[in-house]
Amino acid sequence: MSLIDDLNWRHAAKAYDPTKKVSQEDLDKILEAARLAPTSSGLQPFRLIVVENQDLKEKMVSGAFNPEVMRDCSHVLVFAAWDSYSNEKIDKVYDHHTDVRDLPQGRFSSYTDMIKDLYNAQTPEQHFAHTARQTYIALGLAMAQAAELKIDSTPAEGFNNEVVDEILELKKLGLKSVSLLYLGYRDAENDWLSHMKKVRIPMEEFIITK
Amino acid sequence: MSLIDDLNWRHAAKAYDPTKKVSQEDLDKILEAARLAPTSSGLQPFRLIVVENQDLKEKMVSGAFNPEVMRDCSHVLVFAAWDSYSNEKIDKVYDHHTDVRDLPQGRFSSYTDMIKDLYNAQTPEQHFAHTARQTYIALGLAMAQAAELKIDSTPAEGFNNEVVDEILELKKLGLKSVSLLYLGYRDAENDWLSHMKKVRIPMEEFIITK
Repeated sequence: MSLIDDLNWRHAAKAYDPTKKVSQEDLDKILEAARLAPTSSGLQPFRLIVVENQDLKEKMVSGAFNPEVMRDCSHVLVFAAWDSYSNEKIDKVYDHHTDVRDLPQGRFSSYTDMIKDLYNAQTPEQHFAHTARQTYIALGLAMAQAAELKIDSTPAEGFNNEVVDEILELKKLGLKSVSLLYLGYRDAENDWLSHMKKVRIPMEEFIITK
Repeated sequence: MSLIDDLNWRHAAKAYDPTKKVSQEDLDKILEAARLAPTSSGLQPFRLIVVENQDLKEKMVSGAFNPEVMRDCSHVLVFAAWDSYSNEKIDKVYDHHTDVRDLPQGRFSSYTDMIKDLYNAQTPEQHFAHTARQTYIALGLAMAQAAELKIDSTPAEGFNNEVVDEILELKKLGLKSVSLLYLGYRDAENDWLSHMKKVRIPMEEFIITK
């Protein structure tokens, strides 16, 4: 199966079978696809929180647009972005880069100095606007990986970020929730969307050729 | 090859062979992957502008962080998001949904009324913050599709948005540029990154299990 086949197969499942669980092996592949997502300057300015515990899901459900989907899915992935950039965070990432590549520390300092200057001139709100965007690359790749494994997924922005941040104690980690990805196996009978044609804007409208 | 193999294969190419062009057939697959990207409420609030013309690339290069990459790549994809939501835009998408699905117009009106209320209470700046995020899902999937075809790609936020918007006349289309994706075939000799190990945060740091 190609990526395009996988993307045509998938849809945002609207009902999950609560008795079916995603295996650890498959979950690990989905997390790995998200981890491999390219990000601005390679900073990977976000983390994924994996929630399987039903009590925790019940707490997070408050304010969610599709509470039944959160309740019945197998796992909830929470994409949570750095609340800000800092020199220390940038150095930590690039020290890891030079370690892995067996290069002298500071090998990329002309580049990291430039991005530090860029971010030091911005507000934390501007930082978060940027870190949040990066999470969507990983969100897309996680959905594609789930589809490759014939695992259903439902991306969600409709939830109460403050509730989720509080319950998962994200603030002390310097993180803020951006989106959720529900994973599991569809309950085809109750998933109204699974019987409908996929709809996308026609290619001739979507693409502008110059 | 699996998605994970493809993601491990790819990197952000830092030099392109200007003599090698991406075929129309391959380009169409990359555009299709972007078109199939899921988006918030299925609105697909962005367009892709395909730029192959060298004169146009030369004009867009002003203020770009990697001018040689833009010059030498085969195609530049410009991800450009809606500058705002409106009732008309939402209706147009959902009228298309009901048409394709052979459903009565207005079948989803309780949902579209809700999202219209949501967006009508927001500023255009809030709209664009949201539409811009959606483009990153498609950006990620376009890179994955390129990698499946062994086509190199380089995502870029480091360019002059005002220059690009002006040259491509995006304002009159209600669009604003968000990111670029350079496509082509690497010049391995001059691409310093192609000889380096891929580095990502270790899984145990990237994932928080609750």
